Amino acid sequence: MTSKKVIELFYDVVSPYSWLGFEVMCRYRQVWNIELKLRPAFLGGIMHGSGNKPPGLVPKKFLYMAKDLNRLAGYFGVPLQTPSDPFEAMFNKGSLSAMRFVTAVQEREKDGDKQVEQVCRELWKRIWSDDKDITEPGSLSEAAMKAGLSDSEIKEALKLSTTKEIKDKLKRVTQEALDHGAFGFPLLVCHVNGKPEMFFGSDRFELMAHCIGEKWLGPQPGKSAAKL
Amino acid sequence: MTSKKVIELFYDVVSPYSWLGFEVMCRYRQVWNIELKLRPAFLGGIMHGSGNKPPGLVPKKFLYMAKDLNRLAGYFGVPLQTPSDPFEAMFNKGSLSAMRFVTAVQEREKDGDKQVEQVCRELWKRIWSDDKDITEPGSLSEAAMKAGLSDSEIKEALKLSTTKEIKDKLKRVTQEALDHGAFGFPLLVCHVNGKPEMFFGSDRFELMAHCIGEKWLGPQPGKSAAKL
Repeated sequence: MTSKKVIELFYDVVSPYSWLGFEVMCRYRQVWNIELKLRPAFLGGIMHGSGNKPPGLVPKKFLYMAKDLNRLAGYFGVPLQTPSDPFEAMFNKGSLSAMRFVTAVQEREKDGDKQVEQVCRELWKRIWSDDKDITEPGSLSEAAMKAGLSDSEIKEALKLSTTKEIKDKLKRVTQEALDHGAFGFPLLVCHVNGKPEMFFGSDRFELMAHCIGEKWLGPQPGKSAAKL
Repeated sequence: MTSKKVIELFYDVVSPYSWLGFEVMCRYRQVWNIELKLRPAFLGGIMHGSGNKPPGLVPKKFLYMAKDLNRLAGYFGVPLQTPSDPFEAMFNKGSLSAMRFVTAVQEREKDGDKQVEQVCRELWKRIWSDDKDITEPGSLSEAAMKAGLSDSEIKEALKLSTTKEIKDKLKRVTQEALDHGAFGFPLLVCHVNGKPEMFFGSDRFELMAHCIGEKWLGPQPGKSAAKL
């Protein structure tokens, strides 16, 4: 039994705005009376299922996004940098194997979510900070190693990530996000008085705080909370 | 000579997020050390010129926007309500005559911008609060009357609004917004150290405040500032 408000965070490591939302929520679970549930899902499935198009396809929007992300990264204290070829990284290579791997890590982790949190952060760092691949097994292993997983844990997660069980789980979580009304990521679902309240993007935290009766203290509530 | 930072607000009264941005900026010009320049422009021209599509065309996005606007309206203290047929109001009827009228009101107003501010607010109230037309001359007159303009002022503004001079001015301001990188409204252009910094939407105020060295106090900085 707990009086904590449950907040589900649906995200994909291919999405830079998801990274911002992820770091903010990881910080705020130390600040607000909430239980944060990490819900790794597949953005490609969300775009397909909702009929939405990536915002970067409109040239002026793409230019603005690069600028916006750069400014937000500084303000949020997240070391985000646009890769040299974002279209190649986001749309051609994509994140299916990465999100299956994350799902496998989460499936194997029984005690809390420290591993899945760290693995996701390292994957974001690869694609959205270091301009590195996140599709090859070697890339996933490297990220997981940096996240502190042992060789055997990584080997088992990689093996598990290609099973039907994990593929189906990722599909299920993605469908759940669609059922909540998702058309992009990050998606935050706050369970307030038994009713889900859905917030899209990384720019509704102040409003969300207001809705759940908490106080918004900016994206870096006490620098010590920002462990990156 | 003034040390005030100049912020230009490009907007169209057909855009609900522009209304939120407009009210916030009208409040903050009493709070921040800024000079706010109202730049009424034509959203249809922005969408056409940037190749952008209205977000409401994706059904899940449309549903979310209605919910988002409803929540934001309450939090921002703006009496915004989605019209019964938003597609008809926004896309079929549009805002060309309204924005030409607003441009004419602004052109005629020599001392400050109280008239143009009030006329815009009354037009937003019509379309985005009272579900009323903003395309007919009678509708524009009614809004202007509520905004405190005299009969002769309204008559002259209506006449002026159909001249080449005003049509060209609206085109010019719209093109200026496009040149700043606009793909939608509201668009805020802050002139900081001689360099324009562009912010799109009504969800970057906290970041914008940070960039111009001011403090964000939420969308209602002292309820007394919210005169609606």
